Amino acid sequence: MAAVVSSPHYYEGTEKLLEVWFTSTSNDETCDLRSIKREKWDALLKLVRADIISMMKDEDMDAYVLSESSMFVTKNRFILKTCGTTTLLLAVKELIQMVKAECGFDKVNDIFYSRKNFVHPELQDQLHQSFDKEVSLLDEMFQHGAAYVLGRMNKDCWYLYTLDDVGVDQPDQTFELLMWDMCPKSMEVFTMQVSQDGKDATKRSGICDIIPGIKIDDFLFDPCGYSMNGILPGGFYITIHVTPEPHCSYVSFESNVPQASYEGLIQKVLKVFNPGKFLMTVFANSGSIAHGSLKQLEKIDCLEGYRRNDHQFCSFKNYYLTYTQFSRPVI
Amino acid sequence: MAAVVSSPHYYEGTEKLLEVWFTSTSNDETCDLRSIKREKWDALLKLVRADIISMMKDEDMDAYVLSESSMFVTKNRFILKTCGTTTLLLAVKELIQMVKAECGFDKVNDIFYSRKNFVHPELQDQLHQSFDKEVSLLDEMFQHGAAYVLGRMNKDCWYLYTLDDVGVDQPDQTFELLMWDMCPKSMEVFTMQVSQDGKDATKRSGICDIIPGIKIDDFLFDPCGYSMNGILPGGFYITIHVTPEPHCSYVSFESNVPQASYEGLIQKVLKVFNPGKFLMTVFANSGSIAHGSLKQLEKIDCLEGYRRNDHQFCSFKNYYLTYTQFSRPVI
Repeated sequence: MAAVVSSPHYYEGTEKLLEVWFTSTSNDETCDLRSIKREKWDALLKLVRADIISMMKDEDMDAYVLSESSMFVTKNRFILKTCGTTTLLLAVKELIQMVKAECGFDKVNDIFYSRKNFVHPELQDQLHQSFDKEVSLLDEMFQHGAAYVLGRMNKDCWYLYTLDDVGVDQPDQTFELLMWDMCPKSMEVFTMQVSQDGKDATKRSGICDIIPGIKIDDFLFDPCGYSMNGILPGGFYITIHVTPEPHCSYVSFESNVPQASYEGLIQKVLKVFNPGKFLMTVFANSGSIAHGSLKQLEKIDCLEGYRRNDHQFCSFKNYYLTYTQFSRPVI
Repeated sequence: MAAVVSSPHYYEGTEKLLEVWFTSTSNDETCDLRSIKREKWDALLKLVRADIISMMKDEDMDAYVLSESSMFVTKNRFILKTCGTTTLLLAVKELIQMVKAECGFDKVNDIFYSRKNFVHPELQDQLHQSFDKEVSLLDEMFQHGAAYVLGRMNKDCWYLYTLDDVGVDQPDQTFELLMWDMCPKSMEVFTMQVSQDGKDATKRSGICDIIPGIKIDDFLFDPCGYSMNGILPGGFYITIHVTPEPHCSYVSFESNVPQASYEGLIQKVLKVFNPGKFLMTVFANSGSIAHGSLKQLEKIDCLEGYRRNDHQFCSFKNYYLTYTQFSRPVI
């Protein structure tokens, strides 16, 4: 890899993540977010400052790799994850209006907006420079919004905005592992100097073995950086984004593939990426088989040589959530 | 009670709460916070804008009723709780210096600074107008400070600043019930119109029956408002503060009396005060008999006609904490 030059450009790998569940108050079964035309998505993403790079689909989901992270569209669920200095929340109002006009869903059933604290909030657009500002904007749109901070406000933390009134009734779970202070050696494979393309990086890194049998769309950026979406029938996905530069290294792993226990998955992901620090969130509603895993995670205060610094468990109206932060002990 | 007049003066009942545990690096057994002279405490409280109204003591603790809430001093533990527009955090540096100079403790073993969100933060001194500002000030003094927000940042929440490095090794627990939107009828007893003095209000309200046998120092303010300290041998206390005015009604109950289960205590306190909403925090370290009660509280999502809106559980380095917020369902 290129040596670190003085004052290199800082790239904020930390993503903003939006998940919106839609419903139709008239129970119109024909509503489907996937009926929205490509140019409409392109226009929406312009507000966010991101572009579609690639797309794959199966019978349950359309999955997009973006210039800044990913987008997943199923019948009634929209997921948008964007990094860098993107302006994700500028798209929320437009999204809701477009969805109503284009495919008939007239109600937001639940919303999850979340992110880790930024390393350089001052480089973000005004709107995203603090969670307070983000909450103000969301509160203007939603009557029953609830804003939380998990972890340490003055160190590493994770922000969440969600709704308190209705909620998703099908089994649902989301697992995220956000990693930083990455081992430089493990990051080399995500550069053009080492790998030829996305497929090559997926194979060399070991990402291909994390969830075998998954359908993959991967992309290696020039000169470095990596994104992948993986999908499984049923609307299940994994998505990985890598910022390999040593001065701002960051990797995110996210999946809604149901797991009765997350330990095996965590071990696989840590082995591939070898972070210095990471935080982990697990969401599950009571219909999910992952529900029991949250209690299991509470007991793990040491993991693969990492030490737990924080652990929190929350009961929301429809979901349970755990937040855990680990780091390698300083020797 | 007097009818509510237009634009009445808003009194912020919500307290700032500081608990500091001291130790001596030379294991000097003679160090004792109670050896600090009264005029030193008076000078410290001047910084905070509070005065001592009354004092009682037993062999383990000195307990002070203040013009704004309470102060408790044991051999190695200092607790200061102040409401209104007091400037509690201005006293922290001075406290540590004074304790070192006057009684020899040269190290802070642990610190807990906490409060509910203010109803009117703009009426507070600059320093206390936001938790961010409070954290900045504490971070200047402590290297291993960790700042948390429990509950909803955009509704009701509770802030905590504590240390992550050392910690208290004796069994310890703290229970707080912070109540607001009080039943006006239940508040009448805390006015001079109904009660003659503190003792009368303690009896009429039923406070005297919450923990029988406790030694009580109570005070009824003119024309209304109430404070009480109760102490038990072993350094155990309860403290109650009542702001009865209908437009800003607020009551706090706090105790470190160990309980294997808090349900009975909660029921007694709710019966006396009858709040519209309340939040509850329970701290316990692993040596405490209250440790098991935290798991018990997780299961209670409905209590005496109140509905749970939020529940969170945190594992800190030395303590476990639960935060729960309840309200009467709106009919």
